[in-house]
Amino acid sequence: MTISPLPPMEGPVCPLPLHHDQTVVMGHGSGGRMTHELIQNTFLPHLSSPWNTGNDFAALTLSQESNVPAVLIVSTDSHIVSPLFFPGGDIGRLAVCGTVNDISMSGATPLYLTAGFILEEGLPISMLEKILASMKIAANEAGIQVVAGDTKVVEKGKGDGIFITTTGVGLKDPRYHPAGQSAVPGDVVLISGALGDHAMAVLSARGDLGFETNIQSDVAPLNSMIHELLSVAPHTHVLRDPTRGGLATSLNEIAAQSKVNITIFEKDIPVHTPVQAVCEMLGFDPLYAANEGKLIVIVPPDEADAALASLRSHPYGREARMIGEVLPNPKNRVLLKTRIGSSRILDMLAGEMLPRIC
Amino acid sequence: MTISPLPPMEGPVCPLPLHHDQTVVMGHGSGGRMTHELIQNTFLPHLSSPWNTGNDFAALTLSQESNVPAVLIVSTDSHIVSPLFFPGGDIGRLAVCGTVNDISMSGATPLYLTAGFILEEGLPISMLEKILASMKIAANEAGIQVVAGDTKVVEKGKGDGIFITTTGVGLKDPRYHPAGQSAVPGDVVLISGALGDHAMAVLSARGDLGFETNIQSDVAPLNSMIHELLSVAPHTHVLRDPTRGGLATSLNEIAAQSKVNITIFEKDIPVHTPVQAVCEMLGFDPLYAANEGKLIVIVPPDEADAALASLRSHPYGREARMIGEVLPNPKNRVLLKTRIGSSRILDMLAGEMLPRIC
Repeated sequence: MTISPLPPMEGPVCPLPLHHDQTVVMGHGSGGRMTHELIQNTFLPHLSSPWNTGNDFAALTLSQESNVPAVLIVSTDSHIVSPLFFPGGDIGRLAVCGTVNDISMSGATPLYLTAGFILEEGLPISMLEKILASMKIAANEAGIQVVAGDTKVVEKGKGDGIFITTTGVGLKDPRYHPAGQSAVPGDVVLISGALGDHAMAVLSARGDLGFETNIQSDVAPLNSMIHELLSVAPHTHVLRDPTRGGLATSLNEIAAQSKVNITIFEKDIPVHTPVQAVCEMLGFDPLYAANEGKLIVIVPPDEADAALASLRSHPYGREARMIGEVLPNPKNRVLLKTRIGSSRILDMLAGEMLPRIC
Repeated sequence: MTISPLPPMEGPVCPLPLHHDQTVVMGHGSGGRMTHELIQNTFLPHLSSPWNTGNDFAALTLSQESNVPAVLIVSTDSHIVSPLFFPGGDIGRLAVCGTVNDISMSGATPLYLTAGFILEEGLPISMLEKILASMKIAANEAGIQVVAGDTKVVEKGKGDGIFITTTGVGLKDPRYHPAGQSAVPGDVVLISGALGDHAMAVLSARGDLGFETNIQSDVAPLNSMIHELLSVAPHTHVLRDPTRGGLATSLNEIAAQSKVNITIFEKDIPVHTPVQAVCEMLGFDPLYAANEGKLIVIVPPDEADAALASLRSHPYGREARMIGEVLPNPKNRVLLKTRIGSSRILDMLAGEMLPRIC
């Protein structure tokens, strides 16, 4: 399959410039001249693509090169992180990477993104521009194009600055079939790096800790790392990014989908020292803390070494580790072998650990 | 092109029932057990499809039947209407129809929908269920499947009940090429029915009028009407739904995209009497009022009669009218010929007429 853009076409004429010291007002959501100006002056400089034709839809051509049927992968995620900016990222980078990663977990190549913006009246335009610029950087890094968007405005006090819903479209590579229900006993469980960086970075940005940390969010597009991984470990059974609910919740989902046991070893699970310290102080468990740039890989044993080496050779996977194994029983359960040799059941996250984390 | 679903697969096991008198709490956005229960017990009964496999992505197979390259159409819209329920519809029906219609304006067949939900803490689960049931009815009517979703929760006072962002994927029919830049002098302008019903229905639901009206929103999926229209008027140049900003703003967009003049005749423009009355009382202009089930059709003169007859034979187009024509000059302008024979320039909507209308 190849993808070729339609020819660019001219959008509506919007002559009045927007000043950078402005804030979002209700009229920016009217659908009339002010909406057009906001799109023309604020959105398009960052998110313009050949598909921005002034129509309410984007057209994407798929040229068939073989007789293999095309499989599209779609995924959507709403982003409500608070605060909007945190060490290592912001809601714009998060909104692009979150959906790029969801698409990539299928082994597909993410190609196109749409973005729906819900702006709160009073949001500084300069802040919106910073977020859009960050989306562009993340989209460029992921090699994905933003092809359609929508902007709505709610009154002050009816939103929280900005919410961004992104939807991604990707093309499945027919050679790869990772899926949550494909783990089998004997498989090896890998993690691409240390846990909990994103959750603790957002928490520290809220100023609730009472002290400074140097924890940075891991928010990143994982598609290039996955591309390299699959080229050396094409029979990878499961790929999943442990976001909300953390590693423990993701492994529980996989154990239930595949009807297997997953056992992981506490001593092998990487957690950065400052994250461990904050978690211990506040009573959080890094196994349940959200990540936005980490990857669980469940792979047959004969491809495990190649998979681990591939992850470690990528900038986002330098701290990758083997952390566990897939066993036949007890089915639908995740077990943690502790440092002192005992086993405990790791359940899904039961309530809420940290709200507004993504 | 045909579309064949992948085989259904089992999702994660979520045994605990949700009670209908519950409200949304922050834990429903945790990504853990409570999120799974909300999805399993509240979302899936309404929006389940063969693609709900428990993964964060949906896979859609496109089987190629000819050598024509497939063109996908994607569109996204965030919905923030207030109140959530209004005469003739609700935010769920609006969220499905809005995106179905945006896809349909390209002449494509809408196939798949994703939905991102931003819930405010305290939203009654019973209200969420009513909205989801309404989405299902609208999706069934439109013949579209909801294939992926996401749910986030914000604290009370940081949202407004529920916001829904829908993204649609459609397949373009290679025979049809309607687009905003394709109007040419000589074309005839049709409207599928009376203007302003949606805006005035939402306004009346806010209780701001001080009196009762029987105005019903026109919110409807237009894809079947468009399908029939294009079969008899295959050279239709432009299709557009005059939503936010109303007919006047949509025609301005088209005039600018096509670099033509569009002249419409006041006497021919259908407006229901109660809508006209409310507009006159409050100083609104129905030409700028939002519609959610109306269609602008710009068509070559030799297909105009067939197009009009086709619209009128459909339940959503019974009041269709010819309302104007496309002229070479003055370019990029929309003119209104008034009842007394004078002409005035119809500009885009400048500020905000009615916020939170869609």
